[in-house]
Amino acid sequence: MIIRRKTRTLYVGGVGIGGQCPISVQSMTNTDTKDVQQTVEQILGLEAAGCEIARVAVLDTAAARAIRVIKDQIGIPLIADIHFDYRLAVAAMESGADGIRINPGNLGGEEKIAKVVVCAKRHQVPIRVGVNSGSIEKDLLKKYGYPTPEKSTALIESAMRNVRLLEKHGFNEVKISIKSSDVLTTVNSYQELSKITDYPLHLGVTEAGGLIAGTVKSSVALGLLLSKGIGDTFRISLTRDPVEEVRVAFELLRSLKIRERGPELISCPTCGRTRIDLFGLAEEVEKYVQTMVSPLKVAVMGCVVNGPGEAKQADIGVAGGNGVGIIFKKGKIWQKVNEDDLMRVFMAELKKMEDDGRKKLT
Amino acid sequence: MIIRRKTRTLYVGGVGIGGQCPISVQSMTNTDTKDVQQTVEQILGLEAAGCEIARVAVLDTAAARAIRVIKDQIGIPLIADIHFDYRLAVAAMESGADGIRINPGNLGGEEKIAKVVVCAKRHQVPIRVGVNSGSIEKDLLKKYGYPTPEKSTALIESAMRNVRLLEKHGFNEVKISIKSSDVLTTVNSYQELSKITDYPLHLGVTEAGGLIAGTVKSSVALGLLLSKGIGDTFRISLTRDPVEEVRVAFELLRSLKIRERGPELISCPTCGRTRIDLFGLAEEVEKYVQTMVSPLKVAVMGCVVNGPGEAKQADIGVAGGNGVGIIFKKGKIWQKVNEDDLMRVFMAELKKMEDDGRKKLT
Repeated sequence: MIIRRKTRTLYVGGVGIGGQCPISVQSMTNTDTKDVQQTVEQILGLEAAGCEIARVAVLDTAAARAIRVIKDQIGIPLIADIHFDYRLAVAAMESGADGIRINPGNLGGEEKIAKVVVCAKRHQVPIRVGVNSGSIEKDLLKKYGYPTPEKSTALIESAMRNVRLLEKHGFNEVKISIKSSDVLTTVNSYQELSKITDYPLHLGVTEAGGLIAGTVKSSVALGLLLSKGIGDTFRISLTRDPVEEVRVAFELLRSLKIRERGPELISCPTCGRTRIDLFGLAEEVEKYVQTMVSPLKVAVMGCVVNGPGEAKQADIGVAGGNGVGIIFKKGKIWQKVNEDDLMRVFMAELKKMEDDGRKKLT
Repeated sequence: MIIRRKTRTLYVGGVGIGGQCPISVQSMTNTDTKDVQQTVEQILGLEAAGCEIARVAVLDTAAARAIRVIKDQIGIPLIADIHFDYRLAVAAMESGADGIRINPGNLGGEEKIAKVVVCAKRHQVPIRVGVNSGSIEKDLLKKYGYPTPEKSTALIESAMRNVRLLEKHGFNEVKISIKSSDVLTTVNSYQELSKITDYPLHLGVTEAGGLIAGTVKSSVALGLLLSKGIGDTFRISLTRDPVEEVRVAFELLRSLKIRERGPELISCPTCGRTRIDLFGLAEEVEKYVQTMVSPLKVAVMGCVVNGPGEAKQADIGVAGGNGVGIIFKKGKIWQKVNEDDLMRVFMAELKKMEDDGRKKLT
């Protein structure tokens, strides 16, 4: 069992982060924040996928102002991502942002940070100190070299220096992220950081890459950290539609039995033994499963070797034979069906179970 | 640093497994093994992707006989996957299989296992004892219940019972896999198993699911195990083209700095700050990168915030601005290019560097 590290709790809108709060899933829009309609549309898509906190880039005053209009049309808290210009942080909070993400080191000095803190206190808005390997201050790069085995040390020193700056101004509603594009550096950095602070940690691998490379890197890094009880909220970064980020996030939480959302699909990798069109069936089921809400375990198996044994665990499962398929329910054969009818019968029954499940949930 | 667990070494054809041998990447065909042309074609595709050992299902004598013909046309060792019928195991080895995968428990008794062992010794063919949660013997299911927290114990007892059977007949060229479709069970099972045996371990999550769910589950489970030094060879199981399995496998090894193959692509997740068509550029580069051989680090960054900092690590990188892009090489600006020409100039230079890299490698 995973024993979660103890952290303080803060709130981004109504979503608690840290302490006993569920590990929350975040994502970030890739629209122009000023384009309210596109941004709202994307956030509603993220919400539907289960995203619990959305982040938008705030590049100018118009984007900061758009936050208020966006917030009126969405159901989840909104975080403003700000670099370089402290006035945008202030404007975003005044416009109703539920949280801001800054790198205090690039806001232009302590006086400006003080102004951000005053505003954050007034609006009760938490701040994420987000450093990454691309944002480490010049003096730390000089001190530790770049890239070196001590890169973790540089990331941690950069983050904690920025946190101390906020603390100095009496501000403690802080969470921290220290992202690297390197898996081992990311894991090592968060592990070391978690030893010296009890602020909640926002996990992530930065510039992780495309769908496959990014999913692998994020799963390895965050899998290692979450299994050690480290991490209170996270974003999977992919160079893709952010809805994919949310999907990967929940697969990750499910794989470690931390949180479940919707159904689980088990399917076998097809081999020479496969006796039905498994790709077609699995794809059809995978597509439908993404629209499901009830937490059913669904199995699509190609053959009699592993199929029945595994499908036994499933609430509903199908295994292919020679021309005839078998549909299982909770370990028992529910129906034998000719291959030609198999997909139709299976999908109809799956949809019926989902409908029943939905009724129970509402 | 990862300290690898000490294991014995065996050989599948020319590929060493265990001990100091590199952790090898396997995959399995999903063709009808009797269809030699299709099977060879798929294996050659796997080879090109870096796969080091291929496995085929052997369902009948014709498939066993096909092994000899297939082997003549491929460059990597071939393993025969056999269930239920010990005669197929014998036929596969006589036909030149470099290894067999069996679940001795379902071969029909000790006398038949003895015959398999005699043949394996004569042909110097190693055997993988492959149990999974669908293959646990009835008496063990009864003893431990199913599914229970002790499922790991049942998997391990089933595997070791089968290994002892082989040992009893004087056979030690053994590797073991104990796959579950559940990540935590898989991790726990291999961890416990690694404490009681020094046979090489073949890792995998069984029935992992489609591309995304399967990639996440496999990355988390195998990431956790490999980072603990457990695992000597593995297959990523996906309900997909097996070439994808190999791609995920190498991303996994690379993420943990265990092995590198070809270039690494770093790209950022696009946000409201993105000032170039990053999806288009990243996709173009990602496609090309899969054909590359030289181990270049390539970065595609959308904006000036994280871009230049990260791209500094890259051998070649691009970061977008307002209408003008910057191409970096090893931390220094190599060229500023108008956005309209950016992809063309960047791709041309990348291809040139790859060509130079290839020349050095040959």
